[in-house]
Amino acid sequence: MAELGHVRPQTMTFDEPLPLRSGNRLGPYELKVETYGQLNAAKSNAVLVCHALNASHHVAGTYEGVDKSEGWWDNLIGPGKPLDTDKFFVIGVNNPGSCFGSTGPMHANPATGQVYGADFPVVTVQDWVDAQSRVVERLGITQLAGVLGGSLGGMQALDWSLRYPERLRHCLAIATAPNLSAQNIAFNEVARRAIITDPDFHEGHFYRHGVIPKRGLRVARMIGHITYLSDDVMEEKFGRQMRAAELGYSTQDIEFQIESYLRYQGDKFSEYFDANTYLLITRALDYFDPAREHGGDLSRTFAAARCKFLIASFTTDWRFSPTRSREIVKALVDNRREVSYAEIDAPHGHDAFLLDDPRYHGVLRAYFERMSQEFAA
Amino acid sequence: MAELGHVRPQTMTFDEPLPLRSGNRLGPYELKVETYGQLNAAKSNAVLVCHALNASHHVAGTYEGVDKSEGWWDNLIGPGKPLDTDKFFVIGVNNPGSCFGSTGPMHANPATGQVYGADFPVVTVQDWVDAQSRVVERLGITQLAGVLGGSLGGMQALDWSLRYPERLRHCLAIATAPNLSAQNIAFNEVARRAIITDPDFHEGHFYRHGVIPKRGLRVARMIGHITYLSDDVMEEKFGRQMRAAELGYSTQDIEFQIESYLRYQGDKFSEYFDANTYLLITRALDYFDPAREHGGDLSRTFAAARCKFLIASFTTDWRFSPTRSREIVKALVDNRREVSYAEIDAPHGHDAFLLDDPRYHGVLRAYFERMSQEFAA
Repeated sequence: MAELGHVRPQTMTFDEPLPLRSGNRLGPYELKVETYGQLNAAKSNAVLVCHALNASHHVAGTYEGVDKSEGWWDNLIGPGKPLDTDKFFVIGVNNPGSCFGSTGPMHANPATGQVYGADFPVVTVQDWVDAQSRVVERLGITQLAGVLGGSLGGMQALDWSLRYPERLRHCLAIATAPNLSAQNIAFNEVARRAIITDPDFHEGHFYRHGVIPKRGLRVARMIGHITYLSDDVMEEKFGRQMRAAELGYSTQDIEFQIESYLRYQGDKFSEYFDANTYLLITRALDYFDPAREHGGDLSRTFAAARCKFLIASFTTDWRFSPTRSREIVKALVDNRREVSYAEIDAPHGHDAFLLDDPRYHGVLRAYFERMSQEFAA
Repeated sequence: MAELGHVRPQTMTFDEPLPLRSGNRLGPYELKVETYGQLNAAKSNAVLVCHALNASHHVAGTYEGVDKSEGWWDNLIGPGKPLDTDKFFVIGVNNPGSCFGSTGPMHANPATGQVYGADFPVVTVQDWVDAQSRVVERLGITQLAGVLGGSLGGMQALDWSLRYPERLRHCLAIATAPNLSAQNIAFNEVARRAIITDPDFHEGHFYRHGVIPKRGLRVARMIGHITYLSDDVMEEKFGRQMRAAELGYSTQDIEFQIESYLRYQGDKFSEYFDANTYLLITRALDYFDPAREHGGDLSRTFAAARCKFLIASFTTDWRFSPTRSREIVKALVDNRREVSYAEIDAPHGHDAFLLDDPRYHGVLRAYFERMSQEFAA
């Protein structure tokens, strides 16, 4: 299997402000975008990949001169890979409000000249999809072959199918849900409280104080990490392994390897992730609920969809369990939409959508191959 | 059903220091104790009730002149209740290290005259059981009719059966586990990090600074609370209920009722619970692992037990799932011990052990009635 090799992000500037669900407007704004492969003459082979919390436009390939700079879904996307860049033109967009280059809380508010910080407007999944649709337009693409995403990215793919039904032929939504459960919201809220109550948060204007609410970010990431992994995989990977042969009888020192792992993940995350972005993205997750406008009726909601669907879930994912994916499948079947559903027996919990489990990648490879026949003919 | 009425705690002072698993010694020390009902002439009708994280010696009854002062297991214990104080003599002991009156981190270290704070020695389930056994001795009781506990209290009941096998006839361990899983330890560790990294923690000596690490305690309690409830009951109780009719588009204000509920629980807890106690008790949970001395073999571990057992679990408890209780049952069956096992289909998650689900209380009532026939004869 060949590799994509070096890739480069591009910056797209949008002078026309983006109207947001909150009633605010964002703009002028910039978005970081990467594309891989070639857009065919008919402009019919483009796949948009939507990212989740801790990811960006850098979906695949590497950056020249930067070690370990593989994109976050590089195992899936490239020449000969399941999403084959020899056939497809793949687009990654960093959503506004993120902290990986697109206009976000770390940038200056054009209205004031000050860094946005907590004043960055609340963004929703719909706002992101609207921003992505402008990118797609600018690339000269009228209809996408597909929109693909996992987790929060899957919610964006679903939103595309509902609000831009004629502009995609396939929606591929992996390890996602039609909305967050109370438990999902609860975990988000605890993580947010950890950040907001960190004295270094300064009501979201910590940049001005030259500090970062790292304590809160660490705790937020540790909580997140527990929910990404299955109970089983955590047990298998760490179990009750001790760091030393004997108990140290300490409440503060590391005794168990799982503690060491979580602290490491928290520390690493707090070095690069923006606290305001964390709040914005978890809130976008909380708010996503397309059935809300339809009295909570998901079947009525999906009556708007026109494309074909691949829905996939993982048996050990307790964050977005298969039950939630089946709700989507049922709503699609109720509307006689064409839907393929794969419930993959994988041990890795929610994280599975980022891993290269052979059954999972087999499903995606087969689906993309079938998709490619539509424009190869 | 009559009520127990007003009860009073007593204070027992122990001059002989308690040797701890860590190699330290605690003492002299005091323990708060409550008893209900009458010890019979044969001293054969005593049941010791062990408490979990957020509880104490005040197991049942009320305090005179104090509203809403029911003990934490008052629905179970009293005249005519499943653990019938007309038949049984019930003992509640506040464990050392707790923050409800027994010697703990908020008290003065006799060696220095200073408040212990973070210098309070690490205590284990075994240390607590040793302390409880001295209380039982002082009450003149050679053999307990039973030891009862849920969650961390259940671990203490199991430990009694292993290390004081001749001193109890029945071990009743509810919603517990033979040790914590990696995921359990992970949740404890995040909660501890939230407390320890709160700038008001001052390395555990916050009393000297006149502050309380409330931010950390709030986050710790919110995390705990999510794990006490089942996903289903949270969905049923809160779902995606909004506080207002319209979205407020805010990352910091309360939007969903579940957020309001969790913040309230966190606030309330931070008003009365001691941060050092939180660290100590979660660490005792982490450490409990009686099979560790037997190469992880639970069957070999329970070869030491002599009493009869009631093991009970709840189907929706994902903190201490039925699977973990079945491990205990298997080890007991391997040793041909007499064990009753009830897996109760209750919606409330781990919290169920504190609630008065009729099937659950029915099981306990039947078991205690059988127990009472042993000494009524």
